[in-house]
Amino acid sequence: MSDFTGNHILSVNQFDRDAIDKIFAVAKSMQPYARREKRTTVLDGAILGNLFFEPSTRTRVSFGTAFNLLGGEVRETTGMSSSALAKGESLYDTARVLSGYSDIIAMRHPAAGSVAEFAEGSRVPVINGGDGANEHPTQALLDLFTIKREVEYHGKDIDGLHIAMIGDLRYGRTVHSLSKMLCQYNNLHFTLISPKELAMPAPIVDTIENAGHRLTITDQLEGNMDADICYQTRIQEERFPSQEEANKYRGKFRLNQAIYTKHFQSKTVIMHPLPRDSRKEANELDNDLNLNPNLAIFRQTDNGVLVRMALFALTLGVENLVNQYERDVIWHSNKSS
Amino acid sequence: MSDFTGNHILSVNQFDRDAIDKIFAVAKSMQPYARREKRTTVLDGAILGNLFFEPSTRTRVSFGTAFNLLGGEVRETTGMSSSALAKGESLYDTARVLSGYSDIIAMRHPAAGSVAEFAEGSRVPVINGGDGANEHPTQALLDLFTIKREVEYHGKDIDGLHIAMIGDLRYGRTVHSLSKMLCQYNNLHFTLISPKELAMPAPIVDTIENAGHRLTITDQLEGNMDADICYQTRIQEERFPSQEEANKYRGKFRLNQAIYTKHFQSKTVIMHPLPRDSRKEANELDNDLNLNPNLAIFRQTDNGVLVRMALFALTLGVENLVNQYERDVIWHSNKSS
Amino acid sequence: MSDFTGNHILSVNQFDRDAIDKIFAVAKSMQPYARREKRTTVLDGAILGNLFFEPSTRTRVSFGTAFNLLGGEVRETTGMSSSALAKGESLYDTARVLSGYSDIIAMRHPAAGSVAEFAEGSRVPVINGGDGANEHPTQALLDLFTIKREVEYHGKDIDGLHIAMIGDLRYGRTVHSLSKMLCQYNNLHFTLISPKELAMPAPIVDTIENAGHRLTITDQLEGNMDADICYQTRIQEERFPSQEEANKYRGKFRLNQAIYTKHFQSKTVIMHPLPRDSRKEANELDNDLNLNPNLAIFRQTDNGVLVRMALFALTLGVENLVNQYERDVIWHSNKSS
Repeated sequence: MSDFTGNHILSVNQFDRDAIDKIFAVAKSMQPYARREKRTTVLDGAILGNLFFEPSTRTRVSFGTAFNLLGGEVRETTGMSSSALAKGESLYDTARVLSGYSDIIAMRHPAAGSVAEFAEGSRVPVINGGDGANEHPTQALLDLFTIKREVEYHGKDIDGLHIAMIGDLRYGRTVHSLSKMLCQYNNLHFTLISPKELAMPAPIVDTIENAGHRLTITDQLEGNMDADICYQTRIQEERFPSQEEANKYRGKFRLNQAIYTKHFQSKTVIMHPLPRDSRKEANELDNDLNLNPNLAIFRQTDNGVLVRMALFALTLGVENLVNQYERDVIWHSNKSS
Repeated sequence: MSDFTGNHILSVNQFDRDAIDKIFAVAKSMQPYARREKRTTVLDGAILGNLFFEPSTRTRVSFGTAFNLLGGEVRETTGMSSSALAKGESLYDTARVLSGYSDIIAMRHPAAGSVAEFAEGSRVPVINGGDGANEHPTQALLDLFTIKREVEYHGKDIDGLHIAMIGDLRYGRTVHSLSKMLCQYNNLHFTLISPKELAMPAPIVDTIENAGHRLTITDQLEGNMDADICYQTRIQEERFPSQEEANKYRGKFRLNQAIYTKHFQSKTVIMHPLPRDSRKEANELDNDLNLNPNLAIFRQTDNGVLVRMALFALTLGVENLVNQYERDVIWHSNKSS
Repeated sequence: MSDFTGNHILSVNQFDRDAIDKIFAVAKSMQPYARREKRTTVLDGAILGNLFFEPSTRTRVSFGTAFNLLGGEVRETTGMSSSALAKGESLYDTARVLSGYSDIIAMRHPAAGSVAEFAEGSRVPVINGGDGANEHPTQALLDLFTIKREVEYHGKDIDGLHIAMIGDLRYGRTVHSLSKMLCQYNNLHFTLISPKELAMPAPIVDTIENAGHRLTITDQLEGNMDADICYQTRIQEERFPSQEEANKYRGKFRLNQAIYTKHFQSKTVIMHPLPRDSRKEANELDNDLNLNPNLAIFRQTDNGVLVRMALFALTLGVENLVNQYERDVIWHSNKSS
């Protein structure tokens, strides 16, 4: 995939290393606009159809913001109250109709495979914003982009990194997608820390091993945390057979500043797909880490805007025109300071 | 009604033949902008209040998109969760307040007559986006506009056409409004095909007959399908006394490619107000027709954008200024190809 | 508080007389844009995060419209369906993340204190759009601004006014905030008319008295209505222990044109925070007053747009640049006529 123009973004599997490099280069070039140092109107007149058939405030707003920052407009739909599906309309018809109203679509839907099905009917590019337990490629891209930028700051590249993933590795969609993308890089060390019952699925483990990376699988934090990246996760309660079953694992592998100081490298970057569960019974990432400069969780969500801007620019074929339509920001921005 | 500027659009009854011709001429002139061949900002700074007190994704997004394509902004409200009505606020008050926030309002509401009542309190023009079983004038206009454009392609005009309407002609609001508008034209042949229990209401039948058109009423498809236009409908389940009652009629008069080939003219245009019910037990318009070039159902929804752009331009008095504020589209559009 | 740039707007308590004067001067300067006599794009490229975790159509749309009128974009969130909070995310985390997506935030939330808590995590200015029974500073400002403009029309200033407040003075948040702000002015006469059970809370009464204003407390309309301003309120049913309890007081102190003619000064301005309850059993402000030129209730909501425009301009540091980025309005506006 070397030309993104006019194409759908449905799965992390469609990106080879070249594609990833291109997305990240464009994402980095978006920074002056995301920081409000400059304004661009390269997508003047373009309309994003932001279709969140399953609600997700942060992903929805991140897509919408990214499109506005390129100068485009956003028409939004939230929830399934939509009578059309209830009246027996096929996803194909919905796609044919709604794609007539916009120039690109970002879509989230609770059913696995639904976004790809929708894309078949769509007359404009569709970006998958999450289809149930299946895929959420922009999350995987922003995670990988964050890893790259965080370790670059310490003079490293992704090749050769030690990456620990912690918690619910069974149901956590983000660690699956991230692992697959990481396998495009060389000479990594994966440390997978989870209760046995929540272990990383075998196909992903096989992919890691077949790619020749070093692999440690354990249910112990101690002694395994000399990683460059520590990717903590939330127990995905909603995917467990019952709340009781989920509760068995909540509160395992809590991280806080004391544990960080005792067990981690001084430069270990802490990531988390968010939301983090701050309730006492879970608290997988304590608030006392908020002052730790290596806590990258809010830089992750900020990076999500850059990655989504990049995908919009690439898909609409303007990645090289952005700064031609640039102008000054008039107002005071807290972001540029 | 020769000047639209500043006026409400509430009912198909307010349009004479001149008004219809004017709307359609303006709608046609909107095509380069809807196809993203050009961008216009003639409504720069204008705000549409898109008030959908009853949800309707496609109509809501169509209005919003149309306004964006003219360069305006959209402020949206969906659903009735609005506490104001629950606290006893009159529609008049709601209208007085909300009309202070926008320059034009598109409104849908479940109660018949509510949009006209709202319009009395509004300080800006109101366009009816559907008020229950009563009116949905932009749907009627886009249907009629589609008929005009489809037959023009075959070298015909609306005068003299043979138009068949099929299915639930009793509860289907769109066929009522469309019939009324068609009666402004000359020398038509209406063929109304439905179960007797779902026949076209007598006042509409009278209107057709009084206007001197030829009329065939039947419950048989066969032998009646040499029409120029075949307007298929969905059983309006939600308006039936019970689901069982509705089920009696679901699946009657199914159309598919085999039936089309056997019974139809080779140029018969197939229309449908959408959504079409694709469930096996209904399936009034089979997916195998998707490859039939005379299936106009998605051109209908696309035309809806043009018609709504025209109404906005006319109501805000800019129908002759649109191309003065035109500029190039920078990004790659799937629509212009 | 003399410089607003980059600051939160959380409470009426943060405004001294200078701050109020500044807000009102800027609000007045917004009038040509709100009336569509001119268009400004001073906030070109800025994004408002309009976060209504508690729905409120009019306040939400008023904020959004105000931002659009300054040339900015709006990304909106309505309701609490947001899964993040359900998954145990803290308001601090929500604020850190969502503030990455916008340049300023307007927020409403049902819990008292929640907006201030959110503001601690936010990286951009937050404007309180109402936090339960606690504060709603933009409503208080628009009420005070309305008083100022209405009496200016009669050649008066706020100092020295006679202001009557009527109805549910116990639960009505707006009369509490307005009273506090009025106490910054000199030589007022407050007449507080309510059933004893719904009297103004003692701390507010103390504030009025300590500021040296004249105070009349009564449960009788008659003989007390020679006021410059009559601020009528709705029974805040939703804050009563039961509907029955609320019903005891509904319909007390109804105002209509006959009462106005008999008891009021000929220039008494009638205000109300809206929505007014138009149901027969309440009807605190009869529709027959709609023709009374001193009924200021819809000028109040219009003024809300001006006040919110002023707060956005001040907070984003552009209050003196607005007319530098001004251009002509192309389309026909009902507001400019």
